[in-house]
Amino acid sequence: MASIAVLGYGTVGTGITELITKNRERFKKITGEELKISSILVRDIEKHREKVYSNLLTNNIEDIFRKSVDIVVEVMGGIDPAYEYIKRALKLKKHVVTANKDLIAEHGKELLDLADKNGVTLNFEASVGGGIPILKPLMECLIGNEIKNIKAILNGTTNFILTKMDKEDLSYEDALKEAQQLGFAEANPESDVLGYDAARKLSILSTIAYNEKLNWRDIVTEGITQIDKEDFKYARAHGYNIKLLAISSREEDKIYAAVKPVMVKNNSQLGKVENELNAIVLEGDAVGKVLFTGKGAGMLPTASSVFGDITDIIQNKNKKVLRFNEKEASVQKYWNNSSSWFVRIKTKARIEVMCSIAGDFENCHIFSKYATNPGEVVALVKCKSEDFLSSKINKLLELPYVHEIKRFSIIEN
Amino acid sequence: MASIAVLGYGTVGTGITELITKNRERFKKITGEELKISSILVRDIEKHREKVYSNLLTNNIEDIFRKSVDIVVEVMGGIDPAYEYIKRALKLKKHVVTANKDLIAEHGKELLDLADKNGVTLNFEASVGGGIPILKPLMECLIGNEIKNIKAILNGTTNFILTKMDKEDLSYEDALKEAQQLGFAEANPESDVLGYDAARKLSILSTIAYNEKLNWRDIVTEGITQIDKEDFKYARAHGYNIKLLAISSREEDKIYAAVKPVMVKNNSQLGKVENELNAIVLEGDAVGKVLFTGKGAGMLPTASSVFGDITDIIQNKNKKVLRFNEKEASVQKYWNNSSSWFVRIKTKARIEVMCSIAGDFENCHIFSKYATNPGEVVALVKCKSEDFLSSKINKLLELPYVHEIKRFSIIEN
Repeated sequence: MASIAVLGYGTVGTGITELITKNRERFKKITGEELKISSILVRDIEKHREKVYSNLLTNNIEDIFRKSVDIVVEVMGGIDPAYEYIKRALKLKKHVVTANKDLIAEHGKELLDLADKNGVTLNFEASVGGGIPILKPLMECLIGNEIKNIKAILNGTTNFILTKMDKEDLSYEDALKEAQQLGFAEANPESDVLGYDAARKLSILSTIAYNEKLNWRDIVTEGITQIDKEDFKYARAHGYNIKLLAISSREEDKIYAAVKPVMVKNNSQLGKVENELNAIVLEGDAVGKVLFTGKGAGMLPTASSVFGDITDIIQNKNKKVLRFNEKEASVQKYWNNSSSWFVRIKTKARIEVMCSIAGDFENCHIFSKYATNPGEVVALVKCKSEDFLSSKINKLLELPYVHEIKRFSIIEN
Repeated sequence: MASIAVLGYGTVGTGITELITKNRERFKKITGEELKISSILVRDIEKHREKVYSNLLTNNIEDIFRKSVDIVVEVMGGIDPAYEYIKRALKLKKHVVTANKDLIAEHGKELLDLADKNGVTLNFEASVGGGIPILKPLMECLIGNEIKNIKAILNGTTNFILTKMDKEDLSYEDALKEAQQLGFAEANPESDVLGYDAARKLSILSTIAYNEKLNWRDIVTEGITQIDKEDFKYARAHGYNIKLLAISSREEDKIYAAVKPVMVKNNSQLGKVENELNAIVLEGDAVGKVLFTGKGAGMLPTASSVFGDITDIIQNKNKKVLRFNEKEASVQKYWNNSSSWFVRIKTKARIEVMCSIAGDFENCHIFSKYATNPGEVVALVKCKSEDFLSSKINKLLELPYVHEIKRFSIIEN
């Protein structure tokens, strides 16, 4: 008998209790163990009176630990009080499963060390990619590989908004409104649209992939709030789509990591990932590129991953130790590779700007046909490094007749 | 110290020894265990004299078991003598890792039972999807799901041939020749091009997914040898591509399974999987659709999965028991759902045939524009079941003026 306490009875918590109920018999057949929900922590008991397990509700964390419990499932979200509750559970030698990416990105190392010290397991498959199996395949199936790079769509909200902007020619504001109405975006969407959510997930994925602790605050993070209809028009005209990509790569002892809107080929694997779906491409030195796609959020997809984590603990009790490396990654701001960029330069002095950029970049293709705005130079440039591009842009911005510059990196596959 | 004996020193065997050598230090850091190759079984020692581990070669299976060995890695391929060697290893309480889909499809149940009886593990991740992590994610991460259906490209050779036919307008024969020259197809390509290889892999995947033993010989299997340039022309004209799909689905207590060429939307997830890549879409009742894509064969991709299996054994010794269910699946020949089909009917009596099919199907769209061959009726039909379609086709074939009928099922996403 494995006794499970659930912290939080919102969307994911409800999904988890549903899956536990539904799978009870099948699970017993496969593992020989019976699953039992011991109690469910909520803030306001009255609010959940109508739910299936209302008899197991408590609003007192002490009740959770007073009962016999083997696994604590944390699906409250946010840092406080989840952080304290999980520490407490681990110190009491309870296994913990969490879907909380904020918490793992912030305190993952400390919590994993604490789990290790207490001989219990802390699993967090659902924290990256929602229902997509990604952390276990990366850690276990692909362990023979050095991971060279990661390219991923890790935030469903922004992918939904960008898909709407692309397919229905909506403005960012209108697409966001629709996402909010459909429940794909929160009332305060900052963490999603500014790229922080994706950066936290990328830090978890990269910390495991490269075995170096990557602080999500070190990741260059740019959101989607500045993208307009014109950007999509230019992108489409050249067979591109705009996606908020979470990218990292290892080159010798340096790690490059960024979250930013990128132009990707329309018919590429990532270019075709639509709506609220997530996708992750890992490139390993032995396996080559492997792509995983699926629902990155939602009640049952997230619960699916949490349930997998619970099973993992029951089948491997105390066997596996995952720890984040002490070593802090040296995270690079710029990618030191030759790369292509799409740039939009707001200026009244078009000729001067064109001459300037045509002379400075390895390759420079000025878009005349699609540049409908006379106060703008639109170009596709190739340069030897992102650093070079940035200094060039800074120089241009010093010119009195250059008002604003926008850029997207371009990824061909 | 984990001691590993390798049976076979061909492509995959070489890949495995390479990965073990390369990962030795990193692996020790992660798991605390040291990996050691104890011996390598080959048929002809002279042939491998120049290889790295020539000092470990033997052509005598007795030598393998005479040394201390924890894990036997079988990468010889074929049924004999791999079958006998693996049984012997399991009876001697050695863990076994194999990449051998023929063997698992044929004797998987017996071998897993034998492993269970002897308290050891038999892992075979590489037998389906090569380097793609699929069996472990399915069995462990997605365990909270009932799998509703599987749609997959499981054979790289045929996918390479079909990609060539599509992109370069080659005939089947020319595309096969090119695949053979590039080493993507064997001199005797039967098992690949007739669909048997994909059927074996589908039987393994489905047996695990539905927890019922599915005999690969019960799977309706149709290869790619009858596909011609005209088929691709019709497909392209309507935005389709032709892929050899391995499909199965569970409906109540029945399982439908088939390997056959299918017209899929050009820009769908499976339609875009090119060359020797494999792809698997699983649909679970909680997670929804999850897609996995990557290299389905090759030295290092296959070795990547084998290495993952070795690690799994070292980290979970004796913990996990996988057994195939005793229960034999009731495999259906026909899918009992409304479905769309592309049909080509060779006949001199076009009018009669058109009238006949237009009257009998729910929906019937005759291609006049693209039907360049006057002795042929080409149509897209919709009908209530595959069974209905088959009996209709049989009736048509009885007519003296109908010579041959070819059909492809159509999948829209």
